[in-house]
Amino acid sequence: MARAQTRDRVLRAAVRTLASQGYARTTARAIARTGGFAPGVIYYHFTDLEDLFLATARFTSRARLERYQAEINGLTSAVDLVRRLRRLYAEDGAEGHIAAVQELIAAATSSTRLAEQLRAETGIWRDFAETVLRGLLANTPLASVVPTRELATAAVAGYLGIEMLSHLEADRTAPDALFDAAERAAALADSLHPQ
Amino acid sequence: MARAQTRDRVLRAAVRTLASQGYARTTARAIARTGGFAPGVIYYHFTDLEDLFLATARFTSRARLERYQAEINGLTSAVDLVRRLRRLYAEDGAEGHIAAVQELIAAATSSTRLAEQLRAETGIWRDFAETVLRGLLANTPLASVVPTRELATAAVAGYLGIEMLSHLEADRTAPDALFDAAERAAALADSLHPQ
Repeated sequence: MARAQTRDRVLRAAVRTLASQGYARTTARAIARTGGFAPGVIYYHFTDLEDLFLATARFTSRARLERYQAEINGLTSAVDLVRRLRRLYAEDGAEGHIAAVQELIAAATSSTRLAEQLRAETGIWRDFAETVLRGLLANTPLASVVPTRELATAAVAGYLGIEMLSHLEADRTAPDALFDAAERAAALADSLHPQ
Repeated sequence: MARAQTRDRVLRAAVRTLASQGYARTTARAIARTGGFAPGVIYYHFTDLEDLFLATARFTSRARLERYQAEINGLTSAVDLVRRLRRLYAEDGAEGHIAAVQELIAAATSSTRLAEQLRAETGIWRDFAETVLRGLLANTPLASVVPTRELATAAVAGYLGIEMLSHLEADRTAPDALFDAAERAAALADSLHPQ
């Protein structure tokens, strides 16, 4: 297998292990077991576990951002946006992306390098959310009154927080009810658009 | 020292250790060092660390809820609410309450009992947020259109998420900007109230 492919395989195994077992149990051995490779493979590609976790934060964030951009860029209807977000959120849940990020944020308490990497990643998501919001609000009466920067921060915070809550729930009904409510609010927002 | 007082001292030390060192490093030894007592004191009051973490989740949630209720119950102005929340949020940050809860939620991946306890606690906060929202919206045109249950969930999620983000930031400017924006939105909401 090519070098880059093996590296990606280690990163995907790290995401799944963080999401399913939590940071405290995500040892090299646990990651290797998840991915079906020898623990030595990890140390061939990464200096140590901290190095792997930094790369995992970047990997999961950038891979998801690409998906989000492909689905969302250019949308002008808030209802369409909420529908796409609901589907993307379901993907995040199935693949363990946000759960892994949540574990890494909790772990960042004991690693300033990891905190820096995650700050950079959440910053990129905040910028993305701001761009989406600006696009949606363009040419509406809300454009001049909505503080898009703060709303983008709140959106990223809300996304992380919902994942934290649903992480505790046996089912995922809370996010579903939230998306339903958001879809109704979006329909209202869409009605403000000039036709 | 009385038995209940020593128990509280252990719980407070657990909160501070979780917040400052993260779950993975919160050993009995680390908690004892934070609180200035012997590790044996922990096992006099709690069966094991999981038992202590369950009690910590309950302790920090209930202690804060009492403070929030004392500050917020009966408020009818959204601007006053946002101002009180800003102050309470600063207290949470200084004492490490939400950061500790965040660490416990991340840790709940590997303990169903802890997940159950935290689910109960976040449920109590959701109910509290719903009561506050209903009180604020009573007698306004928004009362019949705002989905208070979902908004309460979003509020709790947002609170947890903001803490996650600010946990990564060197300073706390992001929450400040958010509270500023919320205060402006609150002033708008207050203007809908019949005088």
